[in-house]
Amino acid sequence: MTKDPIPPSHLFSRASRGLSVTQTPVWIMRQAGRVLAPYRALRAKYDSIQTLFTTPELAAEITLMPIDMLSVDAAILFTDLVTPLGPLGCPFTYAPGPVFEKPVRTEADIKNLRSVIPDQDLSYVGTTIDLVCKELPPHVPLIGYAGSPFTLATWLVEGKSSKDFSAFRAMIHSDPSSAHLLMERLTGLVISFLRYQVSHGAGALQVFDTSIGVLSSGDFKSFVLPYLQQINEAIADLCVPRIYFPLAGSHFLSYSAQAGADILSIDWRTDIDAAYEAMGKAAILQGNLDPTVLYADHKTITRAVTKTLNDVKGRPHIFNLGHGLQPDMPYENVAFLVSEVHRISQQ
Amino acid sequence: MTKDPIPPSHLFSRASRGLSVTQTPVWIMRQAGRVLAPYRALRAKYDSIQTLFTTPELAAEITLMPIDMLSVDAAILFTDLVTPLGPLGCPFTYAPGPVFEKPVRTEADIKNLRSVIPDQDLSYVGTTIDLVCKELPPHVPLIGYAGSPFTLATWLVEGKSSKDFSAFRAMIHSDPSSAHLLMERLTGLVISFLRYQVSHGAGALQVFDTSIGVLSSGDFKSFVLPYLQQINEAIADLCVPRIYFPLAGSHFLSYSAQAGADILSIDWRTDIDAAYEAMGKAAILQGNLDPTVLYADHKTITRAVTKTLNDVKGRPHIFNLGHGLQPDMPYENVAFLVSEVHRISQQ
Repeated sequence: MTKDPIPPSHLFSRASRGLSVTQTPVWIMRQAGRVLAPYRALRAKYDSIQTLFTTPELAAEITLMPIDMLSVDAAILFTDLVTPLGPLGCPFTYAPGPVFEKPVRTEADIKNLRSVIPDQDLSYVGTTIDLVCKELPPHVPLIGYAGSPFTLATWLVEGKSSKDFSAFRAMIHSDPSSAHLLMERLTGLVISFLRYQVSHGAGALQVFDTSIGVLSSGDFKSFVLPYLQQINEAIADLCVPRIYFPLAGSHFLSYSAQAGADILSIDWRTDIDAAYEAMGKAAILQGNLDPTVLYADHKTITRAVTKTLNDVKGRPHIFNLGHGLQPDMPYENVAFLVSEVHRISQQ
Repeated sequence: MTKDPIPPSHLFSRASRGLSVTQTPVWIMRQAGRVLAPYRALRAKYDSIQTLFTTPELAAEITLMPIDMLSVDAAILFTDLVTPLGPLGCPFTYAPGPVFEKPVRTEADIKNLRSVIPDQDLSYVGTTIDLVCKELPPHVPLIGYAGSPFTLATWLVEGKSSKDFSAFRAMIHSDPSSAHLLMERLTGLVISFLRYQVSHGAGALQVFDTSIGVLSSGDFKSFVLPYLQQINEAIADLCVPRIYFPLAGSHFLSYSAQAGADILSIDWRTDIDAAYEAMGKAAILQGNLDPTVLYADHKTITRAVTKTLNDVKGRPHIFNLGHGLQPDMPYENVAFLVSEVHRISQQ
């Protein structure tokens, strides 16, 4: 990683490299958008959320909102998992979740996917990052964002949201060579998209695997792990912390730990000790408070933060939820959570 | 359990008591309904699926369909998780999943729940079981059915289907005493409903915990385990095999094993060896084929059945899927699966 000494105030940059910190850094998945009143006011002005994702000035404004409002230690790009799939030749609309015009189901469908050149096809993302990085305080890095190849595949093949994303799982069993072909194509897309984000100034990268919990451990090993390893190797030279977030993935923890990421982000169902053990000597964890704690009162939130900080017992840690914020979570509880992480962890 | 010797042809009854079998018994969650053509023909005649659940002649006919058609070794009552919640004072309609008129959210809501007397309020279930048991061949028992208190609570509090059932999880954190009160009330309901089903002839009982995967291990221990133990103790004198099915519950396997059930039914994400180990000496497992294998060709199905049978390595086992059938799974593949389990396991 960087050879320059990192100042003490740069909590996220230090913790994400395993360096000592005076307070535990904290950021929150879905901190940009959802619970923020100025976001809601902005959202109300536009018919489609797509406009907010694809207009650099708007996406940058939303990305920056939680930095001042919540005092979080990292920014996360305001975007959506499916963002890079349109240029692949798979248009979708929001209703309210993404619905694809034509799901990808066959080898021919996969072979027909276009090549995505981020600099041309996703240039609004680069422009957004440029705008964000101009405004961010020096101690707050921007985390770049991509869905994992598996999660992108589940959306493309299912064509819409699903409880169990059985369509791509079915392809894995009924047509494994097409499943591998799709994973290969999406792996290339993810690598180029992540590299592009760093080239514009992203200071860390998180791969979101929000559908992965539906997969068995054996299928994870065969159909997912090699592609994650390929991604993490292909971005290693960028020298930014690489975060992998396998939602509901506690049943293949030992394989997640082999993905080659620097930081494993775990959900509230994943045991903290088991995750540190799986990651080995250089383990850095991110997570893992149950988001629904944010519906409770301040006393409960303080108790839950204290418990998580005790559970990590001084090991390298970035505080986060086990999954994203929901729109109906009280903003004041979210702000209180962040301040409590800083207060309690510096004691 | 029974003191009479159980004949060799009674595969399910023997395996569910840990006795040796000549073939592995197999039944399939959602085998009654969904993929069966005569079921679809029947379903098309009625506006609401509720009519099929609550009309004993229809529910019995559907429960019996897969016995001849699929040669499965056990029948499972054709009903729905939410069946006993109407008489509790929580009416719902199907749209297409259950939607409750008024979610249960407060202590007052919980205290207003009525007492359910199965013999009066759910008598159509007893009559259905009477009709089924008259027709079942002697070697095929009927498995009675109830949702777990937690899963019933998630539906009541959320009021509708959900990916993460955050409403009841929020109650656990924000109002734990109300959450416990609801769990207590539903535990009483489940016990009386299960006892009622055995009094009419159910020869085994399965508690379905299909929402439980959203809960952390710590919350499972505090808010779920004591109630499961209470249920299994309260039905122990009935001397029928007690099955517990915690969907997506591999992260609290050691606690599930302490629930007091005779048989743990595991999903495809749960490691077979770890589950046997957690259950200890008298372990009997049910499961755990990934249902999406049924979308593949016969060769793939044969390979998957062989793998599961090899993975259990002669330990007490009832073959099943890791979750229920989906309507679009090919019937001929389901029938092939059952015949392959019988063929391969007797070799």
